[in-house]
Amino acid sequence: MSQSTFGKKFTVTTWGESHGKALGAVVDGVPAGLFLTETDIQAYLDRRKPGQSRYTTARNEGDEVEILSGVFEGQTTGTPISMIVRNKDQRSHDYGNIANTYRPGHADFGFDSKYGIRDYRGGGRSSGRETIGRVAAGAIAAKILKELGITLQAYTSSIGPVSCQTYHPEVIKENSFYMPDMVAAKNAIKYLESCMRKNDSAGGVIECRINGVPAGIGDPVFGKLDAAFAQALMSIGAVKAVEIGDGAKVSTMRGSENNDGFHMENGRIVKNTNHSGGILGGISDGSEILLRAHVKPTPSIAQPQQTVTTTGEDISIEIKGRHDPVIVPRAVVVVESMAAITLVDAMFSNMSARMDYVKDFYL
Amino acid sequence: MSQSTFGKKFTVTTWGESHGKALGAVVDGVPAGLFLTETDIQAYLDRRKPGQSRYTTARNEGDEVEILSGVFEGQTTGTPISMIVRNKDQRSHDYGNIANTYRPGHADFGFDSKYGIRDYRGGGRSSGRETIGRVAAGAIAAKILKELGITLQAYTSSIGPVSCQTYHPEVIKENSFYMPDMVAAKNAIKYLESCMRKNDSAGGVIECRINGVPAGIGDPVFGKLDAAFAQALMSIGAVKAVEIGDGAKVSTMRGSENNDGFHMENGRIVKNTNHSGGILGGISDGSEILLRAHVKPTPSIAQPQQTVTTTGEDISIEIKGRHDPVIVPRAVVVVESMAAITLVDAMFSNMSARMDYVKDFYL
Amino acid sequence: MSQSTFGKKFTVTTWGESHGKALGAVVDGVPAGLFLTETDIQAYLDRRKPGQSRYTTARNEGDEVEILSGVFEGQTTGTPISMIVRNKDQRSHDYGNIANTYRPGHADFGFDSKYGIRDYRGGGRSSGRETIGRVAAGAIAAKILKELGITLQAYTSSIGPVSCQTYHPEVIKENSFYMPDMVAAKNAIKYLESCMRKNDSAGGVIECRINGVPAGIGDPVFGKLDAAFAQALMSIGAVKAVEIGDGAKVSTMRGSENNDGFHMENGRIVKNTNHSGGILGGISDGSEILLRAHVKPTPSIAQPQQTVTTTGEDISIEIKGRHDPVIVPRAVVVVESMAAITLVDAMFSNMSARMDYVKDFYL
Amino acid sequence: MSQSTFGKKFTVTTWGESHGKALGAVVDGVPAGLFLTETDIQAYLDRRKPGQSRYTTARNEGDEVEILSGVFEGQTTGTPISMIVRNKDQRSHDYGNIANTYRPGHADFGFDSKYGIRDYRGGGRSSGRETIGRVAAGAIAAKILKELGITLQAYTSSIGPVSCQTYHPEVIKENSFYMPDMVAAKNAIKYLESCMRKNDSAGGVIECRINGVPAGIGDPVFGKLDAAFAQALMSIGAVKAVEIGDGAKVSTMRGSENNDGFHMENGRIVKNTNHSGGILGGISDGSEILLRAHVKPTPSIAQPQQTVTTTGEDISIEIKGRHDPVIVPRAVVVVESMAAITLVDAMFSNMSARMDYVKDFYL
Repeated sequence: MSQSTFGKKFTVTTWGESHGKALGAVVDGVPAGLFLTETDIQAYLDRRKPGQSRYTTARNEGDEVEILSGVFEGQTTGTPISMIVRNKDQRSHDYGNIANTYRPGHADFGFDSKYGIRDYRGGGRSSGRETIGRVAAGAIAAKILKELGITLQAYTSSIGPVSCQTYHPEVIKENSFYMPDMVAAKNAIKYLESCMRKNDSAGGVIECRINGVPAGIGDPVFGKLDAAFAQALMSIGAVKAVEIGDGAKVSTMRGSENNDGFHMENGRIVKNTNHSGGILGGISDGSEILLRAHVKPTPSIAQPQQTVTTTGEDISIEIKGRHDPVIVPRAVVVVESMAAITLVDAMFSNMSARMDYVKDFYL
Repeated sequence: MSQSTFGKKFTVTTWGESHGKALGAVVDGVPAGLFLTETDIQAYLDRRKPGQSRYTTARNEGDEVEILSGVFEGQTTGTPISMIVRNKDQRSHDYGNIANTYRPGHADFGFDSKYGIRDYRGGGRSSGRETIGRVAAGAIAAKILKELGITLQAYTSSIGPVSCQTYHPEVIKENSFYMPDMVAAKNAIKYLESCMRKNDSAGGVIECRINGVPAGIGDPVFGKLDAAFAQALMSIGAVKAVEIGDGAKVSTMRGSENNDGFHMENGRIVKNTNHSGGILGGISDGSEILLRAHVKPTPSIAQPQQTVTTTGEDISIEIKGRHDPVIVPRAVVVVESMAAITLVDAMFSNMSARMDYVKDFYL
Repeated sequence: MSQSTFGKKFTVTTWGESHGKALGAVVDGVPAGLFLTETDIQAYLDRRKPGQSRYTTARNEGDEVEILSGVFEGQTTGTPISMIVRNKDQRSHDYGNIANTYRPGHADFGFDSKYGIRDYRGGGRSSGRETIGRVAAGAIAAKILKELGITLQAYTSSIGPVSCQTYHPEVIKENSFYMPDMVAAKNAIKYLESCMRKNDSAGGVIECRINGVPAGIGDPVFGKLDAAFAQALMSIGAVKAVEIGDGAKVSTMRGSENNDGFHMENGRIVKNTNHSGGILGGISDGSEILLRAHVKPTPSIAQPQQTVTTTGEDISIEIKGRHDPVIVPRAVVVVESMAAITLVDAMFSNMSARMDYVKDFYL
Repeated sequence: MSQSTFGKKFTVTTWGESHGKALGAVVDGVPAGLFLTETDIQAYLDRRKPGQSRYTTARNEGDEVEILSGVFEGQTTGTPISMIVRNKDQRSHDYGNIANTYRPGHADFGFDSKYGIRDYRGGGRSSGRETIGRVAAGAIAAKILKELGITLQAYTSSIGPVSCQTYHPEVIKENSFYMPDMVAAKNAIKYLESCMRKNDSAGGVIECRINGVPAGIGDPVFGKLDAAFAQALMSIGAVKAVEIGDGAKVSTMRGSENNDGFHMENGRIVKNTNHSGGILGGISDGSEILLRAHVKPTPSIAQPQQTVTTTGEDISIEIKGRHDPVIVPRAVVVVESMAAITLVDAMFSNMSARMDYVKDFYL
């Protein structure tokens, strides 16, 4: 796959800069006959919009999506689906004075090193707004999966040191952090307020649970489902670690603790436990898939920071403007989208895994 | 990329089952003019052989590699390099009695679900021996990188609860765990002995440091260098978590703690710290790249485990035969190999990042 | 590559239906630092617009391109370039009565067989308007090649039985057929008038000459330059044959007639002849590359034709509406575009063919 | 796809030089549960062996294939299938005196230009022996297609000016040219004898008919079935033109002559004619697919030819040794193999074309 295209059969190509004219995505390999409208996509995009709490910035982005191709009379035609979101209200002057500086923690230095030129306004393609294309595509993937009885639920499991202790999915939408634990949500508020008083920022962890995935999905060895999820999640800006199931904990467990045994239940093979997070040997095993992404704190803080100018002078900067003290809640739908996109591609690939499948299809 | 081919320009295709006739790899996109012999490859393969300590199994694998193509008079020709390692001494009867059982923690169930048929002997393609192809290819990648002044060093940073406290790379080869801390190595021995007494197994963590990588490597957004490393490492059997730099820790840090500032040093831009692990915005920043892979404990243990037969009956099994109580030391060279392969591919891709590069090349 | 994405490093993803809201393309892997504006793109698009002669239809398409991303202050940034052309003036009712019929020679039946649903208006994605995305991308590729001293010239070499006898590139733009022979252009007019009187259509042949390509481009065996050109040209609607150099003639030649010998000229190796069309063994040899595409006659004719309805009834149809009696002139820029796109991708790939190249780049 | 890997889901990676230790292929994405043995592969390989007539060289290649992986107890396991053919009896000294010369019509100059180094013995990877890997893979593809009721038949339709006038598939195996017309076969003998007397060589045309392909196969626009076939066939050494159906003839036909109308027959939609060669709009239409490849004459002739040495001196050479005066018959199975490989990949891709397909599979 190329740098801006993800997937093999169900592919997603994203484009657009933070302060360019628009952002979008082209989704290809979508099966024909899926009912799809802008409403389906907008529902997903709205979950990334800021302004839903006083802890995310007040930028009024009003990201409205338009479907430009691939849908006819309400159904997908099997041809590529192009979606566009036009940029509005990106105050260039909020960023103009950083054109000549390498902001710590941002991709400025990387892009300059690579390309020798960068659209510095708002971070260009390295901006969080780049996720618009991913989320639009994720909405399509999620709809396909829903047709197959598969559901995904991403949520914030911790912000800074504040972790959820319980899992009540029904409250995820009832707090601005998308946490499934209202007590943790309240404590997160306090933590963020302390960060904001210090002109600082916070990170967190996002989890995603996927249910209804049949066993057998994933293509060993390089197309392993967990490897694909890892690439997908790590490609999201600010993610620095990815875990499957028990994740990092496994390194300190013993085999007797970590192995998931099996037993029969009503004629079906069922796992005793689920330390593996639903994936074993790179192939789904039919139990709940659990993914985890660790997100670093927002780099843009108002505290003074030591850095250099693009012309090689030492300088201290304070990044003003409208910046989120925590981006984790906005990234929840991005994690869910990337997981959906990855899974759809793997499920299409699986359809030719056996001669019986191919023969049933063609004969 | 297909399920058994990794990479876009520098590609690696692996093949082979644990108890099949042979295993190997075809490496394509290798630039012409690289001096290469079996010795280069064997050096890497020997780092995965068991028998180097009493904590890894006594299977005498004697994996000798043969280069079948792509090299002429000692130099690569630019054509695909095919390498083969013939299987010897795989006692089938060590595994025969598990043909009809789904071993907990192994890929048996996954492969059966997907393909309806599996070579159960020794785990087939899900066996650790599958890494032979990866490591052979990794040796080539490492040699290319060495020519470019880039070095990789993978090592065991912890086994079970025993973590290295210091980093002395010169002792890595002096203990059977490939740990850079002799004190930790001694404690690891004790821990493993206790595991073995209980017929149990242990997991651990492998780290890999890469030095000399210039800034600018990686292709946002989906070809981000960290995303590519994540896919590469997570595709290794038994890996359940991947981290870059500070990794999971970032989720509890604040922006002021996590950002790496810059300063000038002898006219060069240098980072103050390296929380990002050498990759920022998916692009290398010129500082040391740090990767981390968490490996689960070996699933094959002699303790009784509850599971089911392939015909759907509850059963208890005890896995006899020769199995490592810890596979982490054997996976160290696999991590290093996958990292090398990933990096070479990204470095080739970077060569056309700017018109200046292309013009310098062709004009 | 996926179905709507062409290329490995320099990739082109096209989208859009004839009567949808818009059409466009996303071009990725464009090196940073290339000066690019809508004017560059529009120049290419204008070469496919109808209305330039009375032998192409009078549809006023007015296809104006807009660049939405990937360009900053007049230069490419290395990020994906998204281009859009909004549809105007596509009279749906010109096509509405064919929604339920499979037009002979069109893709209607194929799309219905595959997807079970099709945007029948104007042919949907099978319409000639689909080439808008390709040509927009081709303009970028051509600009890159121009920077490298490489020029492409596509032209009509025959329409029906009327073939060019001479090659005067300066007159290509002076007749509506883009023929390099004014006498042939006049005869072609007569031939077309006779076709139109009979409510029939004509086909033709397009050639493309590429000069300035250095030797060494192309990746044996499956990435051979001629194989890549063949895929590229055959993917253009209505193309049914592709030739390189002497093409089909080679099958009746003898080795002594077909081989291109070499001789020295001012210290450079020069070919005596160029039967191979500039490509040998799948690799460019430094001489002029010659490609040829055979285009079938426009399927939409007003003559009665026997066909069936989508509900399985025999029927006779006469296709009214505005249709070109010959599409060859409009496809000339498409051939040139696909050739340019293919060549750029191959030239980027070649940059890592030797260790010397890689070392010169990185050390 | 990389340079030595063809396909997206069903992929073929070939390797090996003419005078290296061995040649082979790794075929990935093969569905599990296909019965497969060396016999299946050998049958195909034997069709490329010389020595079957006095018009092909007497080299005794004895190419015996060995399957090294991916098959267990006679059935494919879904894991990659590695096949090897060890080289025997390649007399190096037949080629040694050409190490420093660029043979006209061969890939010597191209490979040197690209890589700066080449295995000159026997043409290295540019040798016709490279097709061993393709044919071995083609045998697997053909077996899969046979299970789906699809048959391929490739044959020589002309040698030099001698064309088949009739099509009697039953005689294809009864003459050394694989021509379906015994009269033409006899005339071809005479033509070749005249070539050999003049120390010259001949070219020809290979056709391939594919029956039983359902409508709907192919992925517009870049994955069009004809475009894929074009790349596949043009990648075969010595092929300089590829046609589909009426091919080049279409450029001189009129729409009324070229269009294939439809009519109903026993409730099924049937084409009246088949000018399109079974593919329309890049998608199969259910009728016989007809492909055509034009093969240039063997470059290696004993006549004196003007060329240069690798050190830049004009020289005249006469190529001695054992060379076929015509390679067309040996390439017949290569065309059939590439067609089979291409078709299988497209048929797997088609399985997710509609939501109904995906839902039927998973629900």
